[in-house]
Amino acid sequence: MTDLDTLSVNTIRGLCMDAVQKANSGHPGTPMGMAPVAYTLWQRFLRFDPADPIWPNRDRFVLSEGHASTLLWSLLYLTGVRTVDPDYEVLGRPAVTLDDLKSFRQLDSRCPGHPEYRWTSGVETTTGPLGQGVATSVGMAIAGQWLAARFNRGDFTLFDFDVYALAGDGCMMEGVSSEAASLAGHLQLSNLCWIYDSNRVTIEGHTDITFTEDVAARFLAYGWNVTTVADANDLDQISRAFHTFRAETERPTLVLVHSHIGYGSPVEDSPKAHGAPFGPEGVRATKRVLGIPPDADFHIPDGVPDWFARGIGARGAELRSGWEKTFDAYRGAHPDLAEELERIQRRQLPDGWQDALPTFPADPKGLASRDSSGQVLNAVATAVPWVLGGSADLTPSTKTRLVFGGAGDFQPDDRSGSNLHLGVREHAAAAVANGMALTKLRPYWSGFLIFSDYAKAAIRLSALMEIPTVHIFTHDSIGVGEDGPTHQPVEQLAGLRATPGLLVFRPADANEVVETWRVVTALRREPAALVLSRQPLPTLDRDRLGAASGVARGAYVLADASPGEPEVILLATGSEVSLALAAHDELAAGGIASRVVSMPCWELFDRQPREYRDQVLPPAVTARVAVEEASTFGWDRYVGDGGAIVGMHTFGASAPLKQLLNKFGFTPERVSQVARELVAPG
Amino acid sequence: MTDLDTLSVNTIRGLCMDAVQKANSGHPGTPMGMAPVAYTLWQRFLRFDPADPIWPNRDRFVLSEGHASTLLWSLLYLTGVRTVDPDYEVLGRPAVTLDDLKSFRQLDSRCPGHPEYRWTSGVETTTGPLGQGVATSVGMAIAGQWLAARFNRGDFTLFDFDVYALAGDGCMMEGVSSEAASLAGHLQLSNLCWIYDSNRVTIEGHTDITFTEDVAARFLAYGWNVTTVADANDLDQISRAFHTFRAETERPTLVLVHSHIGYGSPVEDSPKAHGAPFGPEGVRATKRVLGIPPDADFHIPDGVPDWFARGIGARGAELRSGWEKTFDAYRGAHPDLAEELERIQRRQLPDGWQDALPTFPADPKGLASRDSSGQVLNAVATAVPWVLGGSADLTPSTKTRLVFGGAGDFQPDDRSGSNLHLGVREHAAAAVANGMALTKLRPYWSGFLIFSDYAKAAIRLSALMEIPTVHIFTHDSIGVGEDGPTHQPVEQLAGLRATPGLLVFRPADANEVVETWRVVTALRREPAALVLSRQPLPTLDRDRLGAASGVARGAYVLADASPGEPEVILLATGSEVSLALAAHDELAAGGIASRVVSMPCWELFDRQPREYRDQVLPPAVTARVAVEEASTFGWDRYVGDGGAIVGMHTFGASAPLKQLLNKFGFTPERVSQVARELVAPG
Repeated sequence: MTDLDTLSVNTIRGLCMDAVQKANSGHPGTPMGMAPVAYTLWQRFLRFDPADPIWPNRDRFVLSEGHASTLLWSLLYLTGVRTVDPDYEVLGRPAVTLDDLKSFRQLDSRCPGHPEYRWTSGVETTTGPLGQGVATSVGMAIAGQWLAARFNRGDFTLFDFDVYALAGDGCMMEGVSSEAASLAGHLQLSNLCWIYDSNRVTIEGHTDITFTEDVAARFLAYGWNVTTVADANDLDQISRAFHTFRAETERPTLVLVHSHIGYGSPVEDSPKAHGAPFGPEGVRATKRVLGIPPDADFHIPDGVPDWFARGIGARGAELRSGWEKTFDAYRGAHPDLAEELERIQRRQLPDGWQDALPTFPADPKGLASRDSSGQVLNAVATAVPWVLGGSADLTPSTKTRLVFGGAGDFQPDDRSGSNLHLGVREHAAAAVANGMALTKLRPYWSGFLIFSDYAKAAIRLSALMEIPTVHIFTHDSIGVGEDGPTHQPVEQLAGLRATPGLLVFRPADANEVVETWRVVTALRREPAALVLSRQPLPTLDRDRLGAASGVARGAYVLADASPGEPEVILLATGSEVSLALAAHDELAAGGIASRVVSMPCWELFDRQPREYRDQVLPPAVTARVAVEEASTFGWDRYVGDGGAIVGMHTFGASAPLKQLLNKFGFTPERVSQVARELVAPG
Repeated sequence: MTDLDTLSVNTIRGLCMDAVQKANSGHPGTPMGMAPVAYTLWQRFLRFDPADPIWPNRDRFVLSEGHASTLLWSLLYLTGVRTVDPDYEVLGRPAVTLDDLKSFRQLDSRCPGHPEYRWTSGVETTTGPLGQGVATSVGMAIAGQWLAARFNRGDFTLFDFDVYALAGDGCMMEGVSSEAASLAGHLQLSNLCWIYDSNRVTIEGHTDITFTEDVAARFLAYGWNVTTVADANDLDQISRAFHTFRAETERPTLVLVHSHIGYGSPVEDSPKAHGAPFGPEGVRATKRVLGIPPDADFHIPDGVPDWFARGIGARGAELRSGWEKTFDAYRGAHPDLAEELERIQRRQLPDGWQDALPTFPADPKGLASRDSSGQVLNAVATAVPWVLGGSADLTPSTKTRLVFGGAGDFQPDDRSGSNLHLGVREHAAAAVANGMALTKLRPYWSGFLIFSDYAKAAIRLSALMEIPTVHIFTHDSIGVGEDGPTHQPVEQLAGLRATPGLLVFRPADANEVVETWRVVTALRREPAALVLSRQPLPTLDRDRLGAASGVARGAYVLADASPGEPEVILLATGSEVSLALAAHDELAAGGIASRVVSMPCWELFDRQPREYRDQVLPPAVTARVAVEEASTFGWDRYVGDGGAIVGMHTFGASAPLKQLLNKFGFTPERVSQVARELVAPG
């Protein structure tokens, strides 16, 4: 440990303390304890070029204990990481300035309370909700292995990056991390290293009060390599641990670091160090202990930035330029693959990818939207080879297996497969998909809609990060039938639709499924949830009805009884669209002119110009009936004061579908009756 | 293993196969494999009286792999379990008839697809979503220990029940079970036994494809006792495992059973056995293998019911009558405790429990609703000693610690404490609270509202089961401030409000908090979510404003500018009620008569007679502005076509609260401006 090592570590600590103190808000404890570990990793190991923080083969660093964000902000600042714009251009501007650090947690600072992907360059994933970072890191490691299998050729090694995630006791307690660790152990992700900051202090006190398991033994049980650092301040021990990780070729590695929360401060080893500033006196006292000038705030000693430039900076620049030379040669030898890789990096799709999309002929019997979606997904993934994914052990039910030639399983003995077996681990499945999306693959994962509840926190993060993860949910209503209320979603659609930035699609038939995938595949910054039926849906006759391309506008007119404005509008999504069409026919037979509006994606419809929205839902037509086998919550926006909603007000029941439709009133008779009452009350 | 043992086991198997076959839907594989284990447990060990399935000291049996429901239905039928009515009266009627079994998965059958609490007597908890059953069982075991500590006295042992949960590979993969197992190990719940049905087959195939960890080693790491049954058909081995469990006094026990899915059938050990009937031929073939008459459906051999009556029936009757004798004597020795226990069993509260509820004087500075709630909770728990709970490691922030005399920690060395340290394990926390509620305690758990996402699946189950779990969520909006968008809920309120049967309260000030607890504490069949602020809320002047008792009606008029109908109505909840009052004053100053409606609980308001609802929200007043620092989703129902919503359309940001209120438009100026535009469109 050189003087510059010590000086650098304590410079980080000083910045972290000062930022929290100035904001009078934040979490100083973890940065104080883990600064030496983060420093050692960045300065001595991380293959990362601050001048190009999106270089494809960089090692990834995930701060899973996101409340320690000042640790990351300090490193981004001291190493001089540059800004990346939304179109993936690297700009000369620093990602984090000293002013940003000084305005930690203030509006518009690049140093917010928790690391936020997109907002600050150099942040690999948004963290804060505990466990998410480590789980997401598993997806990054999978993506790294897949990219290596696809693009490394002969002497060309384009991908061999490692993924590091720094996790605290909280991350280790969260179930999502257990799921992800079990999966990572199974997949033998030797490019994955979790660093467990075992300070044994949480908000309520010492971990002795609730967390007394043997974490190392647990990870050994998952099939991980485990190594221990007894002293978080011993840089050589820390280095040895990372060498151990690098030497490991068959297992992920857990580096268990015994650390001291709030190291050097008057509240060291106390829960008080976790989530509050040390106070001006506490900061000064700590600086004295650490040899930092006690009255110098945000102190950057001479030589420290240069030391980082000579360490991580020089190493990163050399590695990146070497990689770029390799890639130039690769482009000559493998032009198609090189072009593919460049498209991946820019989130561009192959030319002509839409050509393979099928259309489905009208068919009154039809097929379940999970089935049509499975077909379309296969067409998409054939055209876009970096579309890959898996299911939380429900592939035969969600129909998401990729079956075209070459689409095998992703397993330890074959990293080229496109099908992941994610296990009965929905939460990790969604987080893993996020990690793959952050590595710019186009991942999907699938499960039953009811189990979106298990994965909600990770689904939310995909929306917050603005990454195009595709969440596929089948068995989307009481249409599940006999499995009963534990398996029948009711409120899930409302919860997903209320999530900002998440596009929720519930297509009505096979051709709406096609159009849904057309929109979803082209998304670059938005996640989507596909909500699909278990039961067959008639394939609508598009010669007679509105074109399915209307999906792109969120809602569209599917049927009108006659030219001009209808007396009543029936709004529906998914399986209820055919029901609305049947009611429409009944109404027509009774002399009532109705319109059927299919409304597969509320969010897209809300973005249309008012003119279009008024065209679909003319303000003058106030008699409106929404039909959806889900909670009525939210539909009032579209049916208005004069409308009615045929939906669910209770949980479902266990019975064959037909009995349930009768019990809960999803019949053409009921819908047309409700419509008639609106048109001619009483 | 006697002939009657074999006959009984195969009778169960026959019923399970036949029920699934007749329904042409269901999961026969697990029951075939695990029938001997369930049989051995029930017939030889379970301290359960079919004649009184709610006897307080019964052992609990949780079928965590709920898809194997036919196993439970067969046992309830063969042991002759009686029906319990909603008021906890045991009726002579059987809980499950042979007709119910024959109408498995049909509408109104007592044998639905998955076990449903309340719907079928003898079901201890609703299961189906994997991992929930085992996690819930931890709460039952905690409740058992707490009841023992409170009620056992000298020679009187009123509580020493055990909790058994039967779990499959899926349960073991779910993160919620990992969280719960870690907690159970820490708490040394020696009255807890999980039986792991390790058939190594899931829907996608052999567990080798994704689940290769060493589960036994993992549980040893959690501090569990682990014992293995190598052959699921060996009743003596199984019995030895349960004896091992019973002899264990310091750890929970995992019985790892190597079993064969679809045992005896043509699809044994195949994923095909999991979720589809064997087919008529398959059923016959299996019956031949098992020595069941191949053409006799729902065959009950002579002697089998009587064999159960002489086993579990006789043992249970003797144990229960012994317990009742003990309890009679106990009533003489400890009349107060006996009365308390009887109240607990009937879900009745102590007389006069409301006397201790505080009222808060008007105070413009006020206090955070998390703080007032902490005070009220302590008053409630003082009066109702079986109110207890904990937090997912956020007690100092959620203010849910019970601090009155005697309210210590629940830990291995003291089972009488009322404060649980649940760890950073929100999902298990909610499931554990459910388990305690099912044992008729009045539990709460707390966390930040954003982390309700982690626990949603368990919150839903509390609503589906109609049990009065109290979910306490603080840090309820962008009011969180500096922690930023990862910690600021936006869509969570919508998701919770859309959940059938869940009462969601967002009180506006300390006195609404009191009234919220008055309603919530008295609930017997409904869970509640309390949504509380981090930041101080003024305590409103109730001499000038509507009485806080209006909370009981869900929404009420807080302020009117003048007698008669207002020009515009401002609707708000929680922290935004004071904002609405400020806007109301601004409007009054500008000559506009507005009304402020506080709307702490939508669900209760929706249940009021139309007359009351129209009184609060007169239909003629269509100018309405809703204000809530949350997704606008759902508010249209109350503001109507003529209204407007001041809410969130994006995620939040990291900054001090005041800056966020300005950024997102939660200011009196903005609200009154929106109101003015409605009254006199600009």
